[in-house]
Amino acid sequence: MHVAAHELVVATAGRGFVDVTAAVNALVVNVDVGVATVFVHHTSASLLIQENADPAVRVDLEAFFARLVKDGDPLFTHTDEGPDDMSAHVRATLTATSLAIPVRRGRLDLGRWQALYLFEHRTRPHERRISVTVVGSARTDR
Amino acid sequence: MHVAAHELVVATAGRGFVDVTAAVNALVVNVDVGVATVFVHHTSASLLIQENADPAVRVDLEAFFARLVKDGDPLFTHTDEGPDDMSAHVRATLTATSLAIPVRRGRLDLGRWQALYLFEHRTRPHERRISVTVVGSARTDR
Amino acid sequence: MHVAAHELVVATAGRGFVDVTAAVNALVVNVDVGVATVFVHHTSASLLIQENADPAVRVDLEAFFARLVKDGDPLFTHTDEGPDDMSAHVRATLTATSLAIPVRRGRLDLGRWQALYLFEHRTRPHERRISVTVVGSARTDR
Repeated sequence: MHVAAHELVVATAGRGFVDVTAAVNALVVNVDVGVATVFVHHTSASLLIQENADPAVRVDLEAFFARLVKDGDPLFTHTDEGPDDMSAHVRATLTATSLAIPVRRGRLDLGRWQALYLFEHRTRPHERRISVTVVGSARTDR
Repeated sequence: MHVAAHELVVATAGRGFVDVTAAVNALVVNVDVGVATVFVHHTSASLLIQENADPAVRVDLEAFFARLVKDGDPLFTHTDEGPDDMSAHVRATLTATSLAIPVRRGRLDLGRWQALYLFEHRTRPHERRISVTVVGSARTDR
Repeated sequence: MHVAAHELVVATAGRGFVDVTAAVNALVVNVDVGVATVFVHHTSASLLIQENADPAVRVDLEAFFARLVKDGDPLFTHTDEGPDDMSAHVRATLTATSLAIPVRRGRLDLGRWQALYLFEHRTRPHERRISVTVVGSARTDR
């Protein structure tokens, strides 16, 4: 059993999804059985595991969140950084800041249609820090 | 300290909740102190820890989600598998794909009224794969 | 590598946020690299990582949830403990029961503006049990 700490910096193009599955998979190649804890160090971006087959799923998800959590909602008072400031915090609250993903034989054990996304909630591009902590046993088959 | 990997396949009867607490408890009987990471390998079903005392809690939860995320919402374009296709992905996004649950003396350390449910979001029955990764110390009292 | 189990009891003043960052940080001072799994043993309170800089973020979050999940909603049948009973369960379902937070050199590796809150959803004060399970390597620099 051991533990390893990694960090990724992900550049986003503004609101939307960045697939980080391959980047995280690269960090677990030497692990046989374990867990990768993925954590985003921000309060206006989050993590999401969702379908990677049909891009329309992500389009519809974004449309749903845009309707549920309106930018510029008059309810919001925390608006210093613009109409997408507080809505981004709410979106992050409704999704995940941390995810614990099983690792098996050097790969994230995701379902056939699952990918891991960084979900950027701000409209402008940002650099987002993600940390990955891997706890598990070492592979002996390679 | 060691790590153990387990897998459960859960048959659902369509939209609703399946209590998997006992099935996961059976996987941690030899662990003294640790964490069980439960992960569902699907994007239209999720995990939930909620009250197990009054079944009305689950009835009301389902009613809330049915109203918040409408099947057949004209907003959705990902509708190949029917009116509950995209709504299922949204419901899964608003709930949990992974949960990390403390283990103490061979049992999940859940609160008195907490149970662990698989939350099926599709209207038809499905087989759902759940993996459980247990990291912890071994019991020496048995 | 080792594992340590801790428990916190947090008194809430009714609906709102209690910052538990310092209390959890105190439990990880001897860990070099690892993960702290925080778990709340209740179904009407939850965990949240959100901005700690501007208190208006938490005011707006509470306002958003109060509008999205209405106390006394006639949809709800689980109302034995009052109009905030079922709404509290729904709020807890839409947020987190467990969070896995990276630990680095004796501290939770939170982002600059992130704090860890207990989010109380009931209107009356409660005592809430939180457990923290820390898995990681020991610090050798102190």
